[in-house]
Amino acid sequence: MTSVHHPLTAEQQKREEELVATVVASFDGAQDERLREIMQALVRHSHAFVREVRLTEQEWTQAIAFLTACGHITDDRRQEFILLSDVLGLSMQTVAVNNEAYEDSTEATVFGPFFVGDAPRVEIGGDIAFGSPGQPCWVEGTVRDTHGRPIADARIEVWEADEDGFYDVQYSDDRVGGRAHLFSAADGGYAFWGLTPTPYPIPHDGPVGQMLAAVGRSPMRASHLHFMVAAEGSRTLVTHIFVRGDELLASDSVFGVKESLILDFEEMSAEDPTPDGRDLGGRTWKRTRFDIVLAPASTG
Amino acid sequence: MTSVHHPLTAEQQKREEELVATVVASFDGAQDERLREIMQALVRHSHAFVREVRLTEQEWTQAIAFLTACGHITDDRRQEFILLSDVLGLSMQTVAVNNEAYEDSTEATVFGPFFVGDAPRVEIGGDIAFGSPGQPCWVEGTVRDTHGRPIADARIEVWEADEDGFYDVQYSDDRVGGRAHLFSAADGGYAFWGLTPTPYPIPHDGPVGQMLAAVGRSPMRASHLHFMVAAEGSRTLVTHIFVRGDELLASDSVFGVKESLILDFEEMSAEDPTPDGRDLGGRTWKRTRFDIVLAPASTG
Repeated sequence: MTSVHHPLTAEQQKREEELVATVVASFDGAQDERLREIMQALVRHSHAFVREVRLTEQEWTQAIAFLTACGHITDDRRQEFILLSDVLGLSMQTVAVNNEAYEDSTEATVFGPFFVGDAPRVEIGGDIAFGSPGQPCWVEGTVRDTHGRPIADARIEVWEADEDGFYDVQYSDDRVGGRAHLFSAADGGYAFWGLTPTPYPIPHDGPVGQMLAAVGRSPMRASHLHFMVAAEGSRTLVTHIFVRGDELLASDSVFGVKESLILDFEEMSAEDPTPDGRDLGGRTWKRTRFDIVLAPASTG
Repeated sequence: MTSVHHPLTAEQQKREEELVATVVASFDGAQDERLREIMQALVRHSHAFVREVRLTEQEWTQAIAFLTACGHITDDRRQEFILLSDVLGLSMQTVAVNNEAYEDSTEATVFGPFFVGDAPRVEIGGDIAFGSPGQPCWVEGTVRDTHGRPIADARIEVWEADEDGFYDVQYSDDRVGGRAHLFSAADGGYAFWGLTPTPYPIPHDGPVGQMLAAVGRSPMRASHLHFMVAAEGSRTLVTHIFVRGDELLASDSVFGVKESLILDFEEMSAEDPTPDGRDLGGRTWKRTRFDIVLAPASTG
């Protein structure tokens, strides 16, 4: 049903507004001013939500049950509250707030739960698949600052799912594949062999998955490859690259897609010579170019 | 530190607003229009919060950890999410939204977690303490509609903590005390012996308690006695009565206090004759009067 909310009496409005003011004031004594600011804003916005939708007591009870279920499915390997933040776009909005647009610097996107700190190092042109299944994909580009100057020795972390849609850490056999780090050259250049990105669903067998199903949303993420690029004096960039033409670009379940991060992945035949002369054993492959621009470290 | 947020560039503002619009639109396909309304409002208000406070990625991580801790302490006997809703005033705001001011009907307040469905019945003038420790307190009044007409046979549920600040269900010995139900007489009148209400803290050994401590708020509830009053054709009233002069009235941890619900509790000496001739064995006692006005059932 559609809710048509009747106008409130002045008396009712006053009661509700006085309650908000009372709750806000209860945080006035907080010693930590930032904590006070956050809690008071949380009160104002959460009360505005309850008042706007005229939340029923039954709906409030359902919300408590939903949060309880999120808490109970969450453990060391499964984080339903992050998933909730992701599908509400709050993770992406936090990224946006903390990576403000700065000149032509490359846009950031969500970090996701599959990064690993000690991924192997490869040289420029190396293969990050380490045997993980998928179509080979040549990725190359440069790392520069917003003045166009090359950034040498930038640490480039890359990680991605295999062609079955799973990251190495999702298997129980301790494999390492589809992840590595490398460093940009003196001219800012970098290149590696990875896998052509494929789509996969976020974990959707819990309360967040039920919510997505109830509202008719897909749990699928658009195909992507993760980057984290760090260099002295630059703002660390956490981002993905996406594949132009992927049907899921417009419906990424965590809202990570930015137009500027969608790249052409060129289809190459088995006969096309590879950039580094690598023998792909008669397989087709793809290639793409991702030129990275880092903002200065001082930008928020 | 105080946060002084710098003005956003037009480009940055556009990025953030476009993200909100995209997330809101992702719920457009929800079949259940009420669910759609709620989710879209939740997205708008929660993003407004993140954008206003410029939530840092570290703060976001702390928020995820806080919710996770709330989830993990919650079980069949402990509900940290309800506690969180309570101390943010959201439970009380939900009560306010669902019990709109209607003429001179008695104001509602929070239900709380200590109601039990099968409390014993007492006759008018009976003792609901059933041996629970505390100062005897005579409570009397009438149940009427907003035209002043008496309501007979209204079911009046009452429950309260003992003088040590605990409800019967908080003890492990299956005791029943400090709770009962009774019915109003033909003239709408009712009366019972209870206990003079005493203050107690909400459970504060978990993440919500830590948050209260961090912001310098007390977990104490103002002294109160719970009522739930139901009668055919009337809106069910869930409320408390509070004790005038209680120091905690202005700082009730769940914002349940309404001026109209603060009553005079008259101090009576051991020599004062009791209303029903009951022999209190030389103890002092109190008395109060709570006249209840129920709104019609049709009001929101």
